[in-house]
Amino acid sequence: MDGSCYSPLVREPLGEERARQLAGTLKAVAEPVRLRLLSLIASRADGEACVCELTGAFEVSDATISHHLKVLREAGLIERERRGTWLYYRVRPEALRTIAGALMPAEDGAVPA
Amino acid sequence: MDGSCYSPLVREPLGEERARQLAGTLKAVAEPVRLRLLSLIASRADGEACVCELTGAFEVSDATISHHLKVLREAGLIERERRGTWLYYRVRPEALRTIAGALMPAEDGAVPA
Repeated sequence: MDGSCYSPLVREPLGEERARQLAGTLKAVAEPVRLRLLSLIASRADGEACVCELTGAFEVSDATISHHLKVLREAGLIERERRGTWLYYRVRPEALRTIAGALMPAEDGAVPA
Repeated sequence: MDGSCYSPLVREPLGEERARQLAGTLKAVAEPVRLRLLSLIASRADGEACVCELTGAFEVSDATISHHLKVLREAGLIERERRGTWLYYRVRPEALRTIAGALMPAEDGAVPA
């Protein structure tokens, strides 16, 4: 991943292409169930969750959960691995870091250049 | 602003209400022109921009810029002040910090608890 991905938008005016990419990834997370799915996966002690644990955790259909997982995967925010019968999901921390880093106010200075 | 606003979603499962609020703010930024407006305002040396500088900076109508500024303002991401003839916009860093902090991966440890 190119270092420019971390450049906070407060540092210099965001270009059109970068704004389009960033907006696309932000759209993928800007949905309550998708945020909760991300959180549920990422907050697990081993950093991963079986799809069987995710479908039971929300009051929406399994098909809806599958759709949300697909949106998150296509945005590069999670990845999955098949082991035996089940799919296991894991958050891609570098993807979260890219969007968090882009939004962080300058004075926080916590984002590597 | 309550400290819980900074709690990264990777630390513990996000509750329903917090996910709904966070998704709402993220929806406001998940749009390319709004991201560029935020960036244009925040990256100014004095941290503010006159509306007259914003309406001329994009290939969209003044009415569209006004609409996007309204969405950002209603989400608490920017504030405005009238001085003489013009409105001046300023980013609210604490609002950016809240969403960036919520998304930051745990190992970055850059977010105050």
